[in-house]
Amino acid sequence: MEELNNTCQVHFLPYDVTVEVARGANLLQAAMSAGIHINASCGGAGVCGKCRVILEKGTIEGPQTEKLSDEEYAQGYRLACQSTVSTDVDIRITTESVMDAKSLNRARADQASTRAAVIIGVDYLKENGIFDPICEKLLVNVMHPTIENNASDLSRVLDALRQQHEVGNMSVDFQVIPNLPNVLRAEDHQVTLTLAYAPHKTESKVSLINVEPGDRTATNYAVAIDIGTTTVFGQLVNLNTGEAEVEYGDFNAQISYGEDVISRIVYAAKPAGLKKIQSVVMGTINGVIDQLLKSKNLAPHDISFMTLAGNTTMTQLVLGIEPKYIRLSPYVPAANFFPPVRAAKLGINVGTHVMANFFPSISSYVGGDIVAGLIGAGIYKTDKLSLYIDIGTNGEIVVGNRDWMACAACSAGPAFEGGGIKNGMRATDGAIEDLLINPKDFEPMVATVNMKKPKGVCGSGLINAVAAMFETGLLSQSGKFDTDVDTPRIRAGADGVEYVMVWKENTQTGQDLVLTEVDIDNLIRAKGAMFAGYVTLLEGVGLSITDIDQIIIAGGFGRYINLEKAITIGLLPELPLSKYTYVGNGSLLGARLIALSNHLRVEVSSVVSKVTNFELSENPAYMDYYIASLFLPHTDRRFFPGIYRKMAI
Amino acid sequence: MEELNNTCQVHFLPYDVTVEVARGANLLQAAMSAGIHINASCGGAGVCGKCRVILEKGTIEGPQTEKLSDEEYAQGYRLACQSTVSTDVDIRITTESVMDAKSLNRARADQASTRAAVIIGVDYLKENGIFDPICEKLLVNVMHPTIENNASDLSRVLDALRQQHEVGNMSVDFQVIPNLPNVLRAEDHQVTLTLAYAPHKTESKVSLINVEPGDRTATNYAVAIDIGTTTVFGQLVNLNTGEAEVEYGDFNAQISYGEDVISRIVYAAKPAGLKKIQSVVMGTINGVIDQLLKSKNLAPHDISFMTLAGNTTMTQLVLGIEPKYIRLSPYVPAANFFPPVRAAKLGINVGTHVMANFFPSISSYVGGDIVAGLIGAGIYKTDKLSLYIDIGTNGEIVVGNRDWMACAACSAGPAFEGGGIKNGMRATDGAIEDLLINPKDFEPMVATVNMKKPKGVCGSGLINAVAAMFETGLLSQSGKFDTDVDTPRIRAGADGVEYVMVWKENTQTGQDLVLTEVDIDNLIRAKGAMFAGYVTLLEGVGLSITDIDQIIIAGGFGRYINLEKAITIGLLPELPLSKYTYVGNGSLLGARLIALSNHLRVEVSSVVSKVTNFELSENPAYMDYYIASLFLPHTDRRFFPGIYRKMAI
Repeated sequence: MEELNNTCQVHFLPYDVTVEVARGANLLQAAMSAGIHINASCGGAGVCGKCRVILEKGTIEGPQTEKLSDEEYAQGYRLACQSTVSTDVDIRITTESVMDAKSLNRARADQASTRAAVIIGVDYLKENGIFDPICEKLLVNVMHPTIENNASDLSRVLDALRQQHEVGNMSVDFQVIPNLPNVLRAEDHQVTLTLAYAPHKTESKVSLINVEPGDRTATNYAVAIDIGTTTVFGQLVNLNTGEAEVEYGDFNAQISYGEDVISRIVYAAKPAGLKKIQSVVMGTINGVIDQLLKSKNLAPHDISFMTLAGNTTMTQLVLGIEPKYIRLSPYVPAANFFPPVRAAKLGINVGTHVMANFFPSISSYVGGDIVAGLIGAGIYKTDKLSLYIDIGTNGEIVVGNRDWMACAACSAGPAFEGGGIKNGMRATDGAIEDLLINPKDFEPMVATVNMKKPKGVCGSGLINAVAAMFETGLLSQSGKFDTDVDTPRIRAGADGVEYVMVWKENTQTGQDLVLTEVDIDNLIRAKGAMFAGYVTLLEGVGLSITDIDQIIIAGGFGRYINLEKAITIGLLPELPLSKYTYVGNGSLLGARLIALSNHLRVEVSSVVSKVTNFELSENPAYMDYYIASLFLPHTDRRFFPGIYRKMAI
Repeated sequence: MEELNNTCQVHFLPYDVTVEVARGANLLQAAMSAGIHINASCGGAGVCGKCRVILEKGTIEGPQTEKLSDEEYAQGYRLACQSTVSTDVDIRITTESVMDAKSLNRARADQASTRAAVIIGVDYLKENGIFDPICEKLLVNVMHPTIENNASDLSRVLDALRQQHEVGNMSVDFQVIPNLPNVLRAEDHQVTLTLAYAPHKTESKVSLINVEPGDRTATNYAVAIDIGTTTVFGQLVNLNTGEAEVEYGDFNAQISYGEDVISRIVYAAKPAGLKKIQSVVMGTINGVIDQLLKSKNLAPHDISFMTLAGNTTMTQLVLGIEPKYIRLSPYVPAANFFPPVRAAKLGINVGTHVMANFFPSISSYVGGDIVAGLIGAGIYKTDKLSLYIDIGTNGEIVVGNRDWMACAACSAGPAFEGGGIKNGMRATDGAIEDLLINPKDFEPMVATVNMKKPKGVCGSGLINAVAAMFETGLLSQSGKFDTDVDTPRIRAGADGVEYVMVWKENTQTGQDLVLTEVDIDNLIRAKGAMFAGYVTLLEGVGLSITDIDQIIIAGGFGRYINLEKAITIGLLPELPLSKYTYVGNGSLLGARLIALSNHLRVEVSSVVSKVTNFELSENPAYMDYYIASLFLPHTDRRFFPGIYRKMAI
């Protein structure tokens, strides 16, 4: 039996740099992750033909393309962006593609480890004896009634449960009763009971929420949903095994009613606006659930439970709760805790027995998604001083440990999502997600999402581009271009000085893709808002950045951030990369976990009660720190000694 | 200040019999209640002119009518049926109206006391410290939010409740939250909170179910509903005072889909039948609630809670629960206990915060209406051996005391509601509700509902007529007419021998109103079913009728039953009338009481658990007792020694 090794070693010459990649990885992306600069103007779409490399050993796959002659192909020339790695390979960067060795050997240490880390998972639950899913299915054989013992159907079902599974003293969801007589007789008095366990052991513990004919014990699922302002992600969670069998995401259809939470709240204030915007997100949620169910051939009534996490505004909109005062000072949500709600009543297309459990929020701008992330990241269980960061239009920050926590929200603005950026866009096909600059000739190397022809730049591309421009000296600490540099890419544009990332012949739009000083200013304001948040919050509890033991990056955007570059521009604190962990979609993780562990579900309210909320928006100290942060990486060199040292500034 | 005496003494001459009646009482009815026989052929409609009496002293009011000449009127002649008593009066029965003294002095002792007795009432609750209504309204002044303390609206509401009323640790109905921000700000953060108390003190005790702007504490109402097969009665219950401020009843619109529960169940089995029949009764319930609310200028959201009691079929139909197996052996209901249900979800037109609390049932034919009656009658609190009887198409019987109870249902058939009787009708306008017979000439004295021209005979009229015929010797013990009696009223009719109650010239129908031997046979079967039930049930627990300490008659029909006559025909056991109590609409009483006393609400399930159900329908002993009961009053003279003695048979 052949041993299958699923990774390949890619050895780049002449630099003698080796990087391990998954078999089938794209060669251009492999080079980029290794910091190897190859000319690549078209983002990987294969149209510019500039990313030529020479295959010296091993096998790569990919078309010859019209950019290479037969002779060149025979000599081993390949387009890196069109090639995938099949074996260990030696790749020589051609002189025309070689940029500069300075750009080597960066951003590799620890980066891999930040991709997979999940602090609390199913294995953790099982190992710690807290794998106690919210719902259980039990098979019972119910006694047939006789004239001597003609107890009600429900009584006989409960008797069977008591006798066959020693479960008693339960409450019964009314929904179970109306069709019980028929369900009971459909398969000769053999039925599957779905029991839901209350998290608080002191109260009535068990509810009978569903009765199905025959043996349906193998089909015991919850759906966990992360309701983001931009995207909605769902997971189909097998409550028997704990496995998240399928995940599916879609854009939140509310986007048509405004990009951010504020515009959604404004829309909700229109006549029938709340109802409308509630039904719109319900459409997205139902679409996600539909995909999850289809993938496993399940029907809506096969779901036993739902858990949902979202920011405060999303939660209130999904629940149809008046959101008006979230955006008006002093920023008051309607409620922090939400009792479980019947999912079908909200318009969710699942069985009427399904209860929807929403994560509580902490404040108007630190919501249930963050609480879910704190649960998933296990911060409330650790002694380590932790900084939990979710970067986005509304950035959320939590600092603390098992004993106490403090949180704040920073209004960073839409730059991280490509908003307010001249050629900005979301991280969809053709968005520049990475950009390196050759410090010699200031030519860029660009990678786009799904390697489509460049169409714009997304948040991570913006961060990487600004870091590269700053590091290569194109950009000053105040975010102004050095117009004395000898490159045609820096020029005066309609909005002031700008840098051309991609010339128009290689773009989808047929226009040059540029970054302007206004764009850069917007990014600096966004990262400044975040950084001022960390400092204000830490200072508020008498601590400083150097006290931090671990930093947890959460959120969809966090996944694509290059930590080193984010530190370079001052978005993330300058701390050893080993202190950074990426928790992924913390909101979805937390939502899944509480479906699998009543133990954790009990912890949720104690976690919320431990968190002190800081309102930054009207806090003078925050404003001072914000102003001080409007610089690359920061006006105060003590926050970024390494960057200052490296840049020799 | 004049002292107002609201009763009058009516002194009948030449019998020297005095009866006390309410001021304004009808003179014919006064005579009837005193057992004074006056010719009255038209039921009190004033058209036959036969009920002439002479006013000798005092004042009576009423028109002269064309039946009396001016001279007669001046001499003091009056039509009894057209006269109401204004003062103490002496009334002489004219020779033409005089029947026979034998019919005097009966059915008066104790009868009055059976009209008003209610064993558990609001006063009892208050005196015993168990007046603890299910819902309470509290006024709170909520702190305005500030940027330093911007806790959620709900948190601040709960804080205010804790601080101003020392109520904490509560659950919150989700319904409260969606509009809370606006409600809170409508009257400057002053709100009225509705709290609902759970009956089981060990569980989460208090729920916040409604928040209204401003001070609404004075408006705290529950609606109690008795859902009968034929009628639906509702009461508006003031939860602050305990008073039932208004009562309103209407016919159950389901009557169009069948007169009895069996035909309703059959209809429910049709496609969409259950949904249809559920919505039909919901229409009646909503109509009743609408009338209750209108009478006090209240709106649907002013109701805080609902309690409902009905027989097992009615309860399942209102709740939309499959009723099919109730009518199929072994007669299994879907459930005995029903968790509280949101009233609006059932289609009841009240606020969405209103929970509907249904009484549990004991078996398919002993339902929540009986359980409610047992609560109201206090049987579960007394040491007395009690027999609780609800007479109707489905008759229910409970025997027992505080320690144990046994119950059974008897299928009596529709005779008590006028069903299966040739000229039978419900107890509506023009129904003969009382009938005496002059033992000398066998002429009847009839009284009709609302003194309208006779149209038919209802259940109580039927019982009284059969008792009178039996007592006057017109009818044998086996229910056959004595055709040798010299009266034109006994004749051969289309359905066999019959007695003419009213000649056609005095009826609404223009036809003679008759009672046939078939009718009498139907009544004997109905009363036999009931009596066999008492005996079987008592024997089943090793007791006999003479062991009974008290008999409680419940149900709308029970109100109109003349106890002596019911005993005469063998419908009720021959026991001193002092042992009889009439509890009224026990179902409605119980429904009201549990809205006013969580203490009683807790007792409900323990009452149900104390009751053992006997299935009579397939019980051989019951069949034997039934056959033995098909006789007037009974084949076994030991059950009715007094009747046998009086009748000298």
